[in-house]
Amino acid sequence: MLLVEKISEMQAISASLKRENKKIAVVPTMGYLHDGHLNLIKKAKSSSDIVITTLFVNPLQFAPNEDFDKYPRDMERDIKLAEEAGSDYLFCPSASEMYPQNYGTLIAITGITSKFESAMRPTHFNGVATVVAKLLNATQPHFAIFGQKDFQQTLVIKQLIRDLNMNIQMIIAPTTREEDGLAMSSRNVYLSEQERKDATIIYKALGEAISIVQKGEKRRKIVNAVMHKELRSVPYIRIDYAAAADSEYLFEPEEFLPSQQIVLLIAAYLGKTRLIDNALVTVPTI
Amino acid sequence: MLLVEKISEMQAISASLKRENKKIAVVPTMGYLHDGHLNLIKKAKSSSDIVITTLFVNPLQFAPNEDFDKYPRDMERDIKLAEEAGSDYLFCPSASEMYPQNYGTLIAITGITSKFESAMRPTHFNGVATVVAKLLNATQPHFAIFGQKDFQQTLVIKQLIRDLNMNIQMIIAPTTREEDGLAMSSRNVYLSEQERKDATIIYKALGEAISIVQKGEKRRKIVNAVMHKELRSVPYIRIDYAAAADSEYLFEPEEFLPSQQIVLLIAAYLGKTRLIDNALVTVPTI
Repeated sequence: MLLVEKISEMQAISASLKRENKKIAVVPTMGYLHDGHLNLIKKAKSSSDIVITTLFVNPLQFAPNEDFDKYPRDMERDIKLAEEAGSDYLFCPSASEMYPQNYGTLIAITGITSKFESAMRPTHFNGVATVVAKLLNATQPHFAIFGQKDFQQTLVIKQLIRDLNMNIQMIIAPTTREEDGLAMSSRNVYLSEQERKDATIIYKALGEAISIVQKGEKRRKIVNAVMHKELRSVPYIRIDYAAAADSEYLFEPEEFLPSQQIVLLIAAYLGKTRLIDNALVTVPTI
Repeated sequence: MLLVEKISEMQAISASLKRENKKIAVVPTMGYLHDGHLNLIKKAKSSSDIVITTLFVNPLQFAPNEDFDKYPRDMERDIKLAEEAGSDYLFCPSASEMYPQNYGTLIAITGITSKFESAMRPTHFNGVATVVAKLLNATQPHFAIFGQKDFQQTLVIKQLIRDLNMNIQMIIAPTTREEDGLAMSSRNVYLSEQERKDATIIYKALGEAISIVQKGEKRRKIVNAVMHKELRSVPYIRIDYAAAADSEYLFEPEEFLPSQQIVLLIAAYLGKTRLIDNALVTVPTI
């Protein structure tokens, strides 16, 4: 695996690979790789000739009060893991390479960014859209692989790619989970032993909601209430949101329609650690 | 010359040309082509194998009170002229192809967009940056050719290309002028005979300012005053701005420094028609 730090070098490599008719897939990450990332890299490898993993902790998507400085980093381990999973290049630009002096461009996505993650983190998705556009332009892939775990983010990036006419096919890979159901996340390392045990309540709450929807429940507030009730069985949990919404535009109707696909979205704090997770379920047709 | 209306078709053509190692240049226009545009197409042809001219009147860069609906259009003539000038493709998407339902992405450029054209037209450059990013992603060129006439726009696009890591080399071509010095513009057709005659005052004012800078005048307000005085020799002119600024960042110091490059920027109404023009001049070193 080749490490590339310069945007111009990455672009020259991609252009050259494309002239050889190689199919390129990119897996954007913020590093501190876990099995979730490695599954994305493996999926990328299965759909293309060349996999570029990007590793960049993007300051633009953290608010001043968030955990940019303490976001976990382990470059040496990431290099080893990415290579073992099949990555051909690791694109790891410095912050000054990505945001040089007099940097002044921001991409804003409207609509789907008005709620859920955005309500709590109003500048977050502009930072995500901007850095993803930069990373995709730097790597120029045919395919871009993202995890379903950041569900709203996948909608934002889908909109970005479509709206800016980026000639890239987006692939969304299912969330990788621990054996007890907890969605893998670089932030899981922050959890105490007790919090780690209790964190499975999020997966359980999603399961409860899936179950009642599949049994015919279409009323959004009832579905939400089921998730809230389940989550509150961990008394110290702080729920940011636990909500059912249309999976395409995040609309929140009073009642969902037969055959409509619903996304169940949860964000909650266990102690100081904020976890998110989601699941898809389709309303039965009868 | 081939007409292309679909983004996906344009991208497939560009990708195929790139695999053949062809160098592609794009000339973005809003149509109603004049010699200024045709010179851009000729310049593009001299630097590349393939020229794509884009023709799209971008609703996003017109404010509600501006001239989007009455912006002059003549598709048939544009096709003939672009082909004669050496264009290989004319990319002319519809508004719904460029801005489909649920479109929701905007690119904002800060810094250089805080004054001059932006002061009068606050949303203008976001619209320009967004459509240029879309057109460049649709055509995927090696070179993008823009005219110096829209000077602040060239700075905005330079910043866009740099900040978003677009792998494109920007070429800025000098302003094409009528024999009497008036900068060519699609909007010149709106001028009455008298206004057309008086419009040369803009070119004269730029010339006066160049002359005093070259003679050693470094004080910004004096340079500005010379342009204002010259412009006011047409009594009915309405001056939006007539200003000297640093040509890279549009800073406006009290005094310019030896060897600093200055841009002289003018925007003024003759009757109902708003004209812009500019010129570059370097402060003498002694």
